[in-house]
Amino acid sequence: MPKISKKGINMPQSPIRKLVPFAEQAEKQGKTVYYLNIGQPDIKTPQIALDAVKVHSLDILAYSRSEGSENYRTKIADYYRKNDIHVTHNNIIVTTGGSEALLFAFGSIMDEEDEVIIPEPFYANYNGFSTASSVKVVPVISKIEDNFALPPIEEFEKLITPKTKAILICNPGNPTGYLYSREEIKKLAAIVKKHDLFLIADEVYREFVYDGITHYSILQESGLEEHAIVIDSVSKRYSMCGARIGYLVSKNEEVIKTALKFAQARLSPPTLAQIASEAALETPQSYFDDVIDEYVKRRNILISGLENIEGVKVAKPNGAFYCIAELPVKNSDDFARWLLESFDYENNTIMVAPAAGFYSTPGVGLNQIRIAYVLNEKSLKLAIKILDEALKVYRD
Amino acid sequence: MPKISKKGINMPQSPIRKLVPFAEQAEKQGKTVYYLNIGQPDIKTPQIALDAVKVHSLDILAYSRSEGSENYRTKIADYYRKNDIHVTHNNIIVTTGGSEALLFAFGSIMDEEDEVIIPEPFYANYNGFSTASSVKVVPVISKIEDNFALPPIEEFEKLITPKTKAILICNPGNPTGYLYSREEIKKLAAIVKKHDLFLIADEVYREFVYDGITHYSILQESGLEEHAIVIDSVSKRYSMCGARIGYLVSKNEEVIKTALKFAQARLSPPTLAQIASEAALETPQSYFDDVIDEYVKRRNILISGLENIEGVKVAKPNGAFYCIAELPVKNSDDFARWLLESFDYENNTIMVAPAAGFYSTPGVGLNQIRIAYVLNEKSLKLAIKILDEALKVYRD
Ligand SMILES: Cc1ncc(COP(=O)(O)O)c(C=O)c1O
Ligand SMILES: Cc1ncc(COP(=O)(O)O)c(C=O)c1O
Repeated sequence: MPKISKKGINMPQSPIRKLVPFAEQAEKQGKTVYYLNIGQPDIKTPQIALDAVKVHSLDILAYSRSEGSENYRTKIADYYRKNDIHVTHNNIIVTTGGSEALLFAFGSIMDEEDEVIIPEPFYANYNGFSTASSVKVVPVISKIEDNFALPPIEEFEKLITPKTKAILICNPGNPTGYLYSREEIKKLAAIVKKHDLFLIADEVYREFVYDGITHYSILQESGLEEHAIVIDSVSKRYSMCGARIGYLVSKNEEVIKTALKFAQARLSPPTLAQIASEAALETPQSYFDDVIDEYVKRRNILISGLENIEGVKVAKPNGAFYCIAELPVKNSDDFARWLLESFDYENNTIMVAPAAGFYSTPGVGLNQIRIAYVLNEKSLKLAIKILDEALKVYRD
Repeated sequence: MPKISKKGINMPQSPIRKLVPFAEQAEKQGKTVYYLNIGQPDIKTPQIALDAVKVHSLDILAYSRSEGSENYRTKIADYYRKNDIHVTHNNIIVTTGGSEALLFAFGSIMDEEDEVIIPEPFYANYNGFSTASSVKVVPVISKIEDNFALPPIEEFEKLITPKTKAILICNPGNPTGYLYSREEIKKLAAIVKKHDLFLIADEVYREFVYDGITHYSILQESGLEEHAIVIDSVSKRYSMCGARIGYLVSKNEEVIKTALKFAQARLSPPTLAQIASEAALETPQSYFDDVIDEYVKRRNILISGLENIEGVKVAKPNGAFYCIAELPVKNSDDFARWLLESFDYENNTIMVAPAAGFYSTPGVGLNQIRIAYVLNEKSLKLAIKILDEALKVYRD
């Protein structure tokens, strides 16, 4: 029997999905499972986007241009302009989700064994994309005690080697909810300029910023034109994760030219989804205001709820819709599985994401979980109650 | 300025798309360009597929399962059963086009510097996917004189090294239109079993088979269960290239388990497109009969038209909708560009794909072009006339 690749063996299992069979089992046993593990919001997609595909007048569902239609890209550039980011359609490649934009970025700037420095904990699939691209992730630890702020510059500089090609940040962060300040972005800009590196910023949660703070994009930082690569996506912005539309944005022409070759090899991003995504750009501001209000409310409920559970430590997120919580358990993997297999509170239980998968340093984050606040107020309150009760039982 | 990757530099430009700027220029000059370069059929998408997305009742466009919904995969398995291929939904991963299925297959079974043997000429993007996966393509030459039949077994065996992991065929072939016989598949089966290799068959054109011949899939060959990986796609079958839905099919559980990890990292295939593609499975047989009739008619017109042009040699395709033609020119790249830049016949010209990009052996195929017969009868006849006239001028 022929053997699969080493790369295939090394591909990490998604920490978000690996407990799914246990959740399915729990549901079969009649339990109601509240899903806090996955970034699939329960927020409605803007009606304008849903309707756009209903009235399509295509009679051939054809390939689009590999980089996305010029019309759509021009409108995306308009969107950025309104957000004080000045790019043209030529700086944008439409991709199949932010996921593919990450793959194109990795492929365009890194070869086998090259290194990318990423503050951890980080979006778990960065591990997967790195493995798929044979790139090495070099983590720099950010700490729950510091609310997951940018690690000191010295920590980055210690890690830079001749193989370092890029620093990758997620802003605001999944799984931390941390929002980088303008000053932190400037610090990163200084490092990447000094060491001639790329700075990739995954800004898929750019709209999800709370407490009156404004998001500062790496594309707003002048002097960073040749270094900055932004990863973006419609998935969370318009709650249309299933569309699979994202963007790679850069003013570095070589990067765009190179990413375009990867884009051409896979022919085109999905056409129907581009129709929906183009329409989504017309979503009224009131939609976003409501969504932000909703997430702020949920975050406040979640954070104060978690703070009231004995032994639980939590960092307060200023953006995105996740938080990392430290639990009074040894191994959150075991605990998360136990929640599904052996626990119920009035026949309810929760599914959480063990946080170890968001770290690449072995042994770190073992007592942490990631919670996505993608459930409505009532469910979220019940979920917190379940966690509270579960910890009482588990500790004993 | 930070440097892009060697891989990025090495990524080939798509031979199909690289002349696009010249075609655009020709159109700006007022010429009508007939596109024979790209496999984007002019055939209508089945109404049932187009309508399915018009009546969707989603209010959240959510991620689907990474491997595609169980319901859809079960229906795909039914489709295969009707084609005498016996697989279950567990043998199928739904991908973002056949393109992504190829990437997952390469990633799952090959590491850097591993080798895949491919009869050339081959689908040009195999080069791109190989470069993206850092895999080495080892071509085995099939010849226009032999109608591009399977090269002799000895030719394969000569090329097998400890680094060889797979043989990749395209059946029926793009760009050759060649359809492998049952005996040829059996020969390949013998080699991969003897040398413990994978056999990947790109069967995206499986329905496009003419002259009463039946397609024989590698999944029908018994004893090949652990070796066979099929790449499939809805793109051409239902003329819905823009959907971006394909499949990776294998009975090798390790392959499926591994490909699933790649699939999970990128979250999910497009949701709207899965709705359309699931509906497309209900397309009545009459649709396919009409399409096949149409392609046969076009093929016959094209082949006899080409045979009547002095100095042109052409292999007769039994499947897909491409053919390779050898022209009385030195460099078809220059000729193809000249057609757009400097030639017109009554203000019309054609765009063809220079065939060198379909070979990986340097210097081969320089006097060949690939023609996609994706235009209607009238346009096709005019296109042949244009080629005829152009060659008269070009030769002089
Ligand atoms: C930080 C981050 N980046 C990228 C993605 C990829 O999303 P998509 O491919 O749906 O755009 C996600 C999805 O959860 C994410 O959380
Ligand atoms: C031989 C072959 N394989 C795979 C593909 C990829 O098609 P898609 O990604 O649209 O399924 C194509 C498209 O032209 C092709 O010709």
